[in-house]
Amino acid sequence: MITGKNYIGNQLSANGNKTYTTFNPQTNQENKVVFTEATSEEIDQAVLLATEAFASFRNTSKEQKAAFLNAIADEILALGDELLETYCSESGLPQGRAMGERGRTMGQLRSFAELVLEGSWVEASIDTAQPDRAPMPKPDVRKMNIPLGPVVVFGASNFPLAYSTAGGDTAAALAAGCPVLVKSHPMHAGTGELISSAIIKAAKDTGMPNGVFSNLNSSGIEVGQQLVNHPKVKAVGFTGSIRGGRALYDLAAKRPEPIPVFAEMGSVNPVVVLPKALENRAAALAKTYAQSITLGTGQFCTNPGLILGIKGAALTEFINVLASEIVTIDPGCMLHPNILGAYEANKEKAISQEGLTLAAHYQNDVATNFAKQAIATVNGATFLANPQLHQEVFGPYSIVVQCDDANQLEELILQLEGQLTGTVIADDNETANYPGVIAAVQNRVGRIIFNGVPTGVEVCPSMVHGGPYPASTDSRFTAVGVSSIARWVRPFSYQDWPNKLLPLELKNENPLGILRLVNNQKTTDKI
Amino acid sequence: MITGKNYIGNQLSANGNKTYTTFNPQTNQENKVVFTEATSEEIDQAVLLATEAFASFRNTSKEQKAAFLNAIADEILALGDELLETYCSESGLPQGRAMGERGRTMGQLRSFAELVLEGSWVEASIDTAQPDRAPMPKPDVRKMNIPLGPVVVFGASNFPLAYSTAGGDTAAALAAGCPVLVKSHPMHAGTGELISSAIIKAAKDTGMPNGVFSNLNSSGIEVGQQLVNHPKVKAVGFTGSIRGGRALYDLAAKRPEPIPVFAEMGSVNPVVVLPKALENRAAALAKTYAQSITLGTGQFCTNPGLILGIKGAALTEFINVLASEIVTIDPGCMLHPNILGAYEANKEKAISQEGLTLAAHYQNDVATNFAKQAIATVNGATFLANPQLHQEVFGPYSIVVQCDDANQLEELILQLEGQLTGTVIADDNETANYPGVIAAVQNRVGRIIFNGVPTGVEVCPSMVHGGPYPASTDSRFTAVGVSSIARWVRPFSYQDWPNKLLPLELKNENPLGILRLVNNQKTTDKI
Repeated sequence: MITGKNYIGNQLSANGNKTYTTFNPQTNQENKVVFTEATSEEIDQAVLLATEAFASFRNTSKEQKAAFLNAIADEILALGDELLETYCSESGLPQGRAMGERGRTMGQLRSFAELVLEGSWVEASIDTAQPDRAPMPKPDVRKMNIPLGPVVVFGASNFPLAYSTAGGDTAAALAAGCPVLVKSHPMHAGTGELISSAIIKAAKDTGMPNGVFSNLNSSGIEVGQQLVNHPKVKAVGFTGSIRGGRALYDLAAKRPEPIPVFAEMGSVNPVVVLPKALENRAAALAKTYAQSITLGTGQFCTNPGLILGIKGAALTEFINVLASEIVTIDPGCMLHPNILGAYEANKEKAISQEGLTLAAHYQNDVATNFAKQAIATVNGATFLANPQLHQEVFGPYSIVVQCDDANQLEELILQLEGQLTGTVIADDNETANYPGVIAAVQNRVGRIIFNGVPTGVEVCPSMVHGGPYPASTDSRFTAVGVSSIARWVRPFSYQDWPNKLLPLELKNENPLGILRLVNNQKTTDKI
Repeated sequence: MITGKNYIGNQLSANGNKTYTTFNPQTNQENKVVFTEATSEEIDQAVLLATEAFASFRNTSKEQKAAFLNAIADEILALGDELLETYCSESGLPQGRAMGERGRTMGQLRSFAELVLEGSWVEASIDTAQPDRAPMPKPDVRKMNIPLGPVVVFGASNFPLAYSTAGGDTAAALAAGCPVLVKSHPMHAGTGELISSAIIKAAKDTGMPNGVFSNLNSSGIEVGQQLVNHPKVKAVGFTGSIRGGRALYDLAAKRPEPIPVFAEMGSVNPVVVLPKALENRAAALAKTYAQSITLGTGQFCTNPGLILGIKGAALTEFINVLASEIVTIDPGCMLHPNILGAYEANKEKAISQEGLTLAAHYQNDVATNFAKQAIATVNGATFLANPQLHQEVFGPYSIVVQCDDANQLEELILQLEGQLTGTVIADDNETANYPGVIAAVQNRVGRIIFNGVPTGVEVCPSMVHGGPYPASTDSRFTAVGVSSIARWVRPFSYQDWPNKLLPLELKNENPLGILRLVNNQKTTDKI
């Protein structure tokens, strides 16, 4: 049952008087539950509990931590239909997507449980002493990753489960040993509360300290600001807009003690279609991309918003087929009227730019809150000259740029901001003719895809979901996959520390049997 | 021969009209060579060259990169006496220290050469495709670390070699594949130019692109500011004061595209002396600490500036012996009259605080630019109430805090800012009686030392030289040891990329024979 209250640690609490509701874009009606925004005191209390919980949670055994993460996955599944129905009612997304995203979320939690249970993620490193070394004895130095402290997680509007309350940021932070304070996304506060109840139940059942998790309702920016400014908060995870992510980054950078903010933000995900590939299969590629551009009503971080080719008959054919194909696809509901409003405004702004041609625009009537997909096209020089055209239009919209030649294509890519992904569509050996273009794409993105579509982010250790700014605020980390745990830990050295006082990971006996770097050799051996 | 010019890539250049000299604190005279500050145009040119060099340097083979790093070490040694003499004349440090620091610097370069040659540092990770997976095929995803781009390095006043021109930041950045632009430290510009000439010669001899390294003279803050603000600069390394490091951090955070700044800054390196250890060996500990406090005239980042104990006869004995011992040590020359001036001013400010007692202060006459060591003592409540006493006094000064009890000791540690190191002096099993104290120290530092001194930073893979702010601007990285390379790289994913187009590190055949994570198993096997 959704109460509309905050979780301040294990306690439901609603002391405030600022309330709000969520909205069902499919029915165009407000949902019934009234949510109460967290007060300043409730936020302080939650951070205090998290700080206290950190003292014990950081030393929780790997078995207990894995049990906690797996229990969260179990409890999410146990929420059953209520979760799926709430998810759909707060996002307008279909039930199939809800189930898929739930599976992905559970999979992420379980993959972090595996990581923790295996144990080598702490990157234990041991250099043994050399007391006889001249001129100075060499001390015994041992290093491992330890958690930073309480982490604040801001959920994403477009992934109410996988990138929100118990999403990748939360799973990674808990796996690292950091208590988590979620700033609940106002668009799916009910989904967030249900997931929170699952986390709290899992925490209680597996003996985690009160305060290891809190969920704070908010309808504006104040709750998030107070959390990021709180001196006891040590890191921030965010998925959302460039404006929102940058505001949090700036806030954190101005603190007396600056803290890391990992924000995964905007991206137009450029797709480079090389001439031979186009000559051989322009129509098939266009059909594939019509599907990718409209997938999830274009509401994926990795939606292909920019397609780059070299002008000619094959590119013209690609544009024509893409244009005719995309209007045959049924429009989809957007997450919220505000998101639809932003889409329509940004799309209008884009297509009203000088020199831009509208190749396709869905014209039939659509249901309320449904988005009309569109394809625009422009020449390379016009695109280069107008930074407005480089901006993301969040939704089912893409612009095809017809470059004069490979040099202009390369120049254009070099001018792009950082991106989550770049895609190269090429035929056999064709990339060898465009080394500058390929290098330029690699320089601007976190992930490069060959002959595919950028939509779809596989959750696996090799995935990088991040990239140069503004794809993320720090390209040195990924938001997806188990190595995203690196965002929430720091290396810590023990010098000449007695073996009996060392943590299990660093003891001579290697009781956990983990892979360690011992005197510069990777080994699971004891010392 | 020192010319006083900048290295703009391989070219000596001095187009500016702002000049300065370095100073010999031992003779209290200006050195003869006149240095010309880099102009705005020279800086732009150096960054342009670095950006062009990056395109090829990033793809340099590991053998070539290792040869470059080893050649730098060789060329530094080949500078011979001129380097040692210049070093001493610009720092007031003795020749033995110069030779030791040169050896350390060369050792760092060689350890990065080894790291690069071994090759596994790229953290290659491969998840192979599952085309038949339902409901969606699993793509082939492969990840490795790639360099960020041109890095700016600010050298440290107190380590003209090991933390400056070819120091740890530069060695790590070059090893990663990042061109380096050094903002030369004005106090040792001649040493910097000599080292730069060694780097340039090594670069030419090993076929590195022009622009892989530049050295920019500066006497004020403008050169550094222009470098950090340059859009083509992708990261910054700094060693120095909190004020300087924070200013660069703030500058970088305000850029349209924020970039990472790793600044290693101030630290008072608290030392906790537990009662039993004091009872058993107060005098011996005091003698050891008298040496550590005055080592290098107290000009180490890890100088023990704060000693914490519980009041009683043993702590009184420790203070008395420390006080009588420290004044028997010959005073040393400081790096520069300005550093001596800051030391004397900060020391005076500290010892003039209400409630503080001066336990020892060297009273004999000293040579010009030599520092008079001092020990102060204060009770726990006074220390807790006065944040001024928590500030670093850079030089041979330390304050001993006499706490009422273990609770006050713990409270005091929890109030400290972040530190590079924390030291615990204890007898067998004694730490078990102070779990809160030990946990508090661990929470505030990057490295914890048992029954030793914090001075001395062993260069090894397990070392963490960094810590919570303001010890560093990002506790998630170390400035010393080969894992400091992580500051200058980002993970990058290839999805469904053809094997023949993949970099060697990610090819099926594993031609480099490196350790990789393949389908979640660490292995050197091919696929």
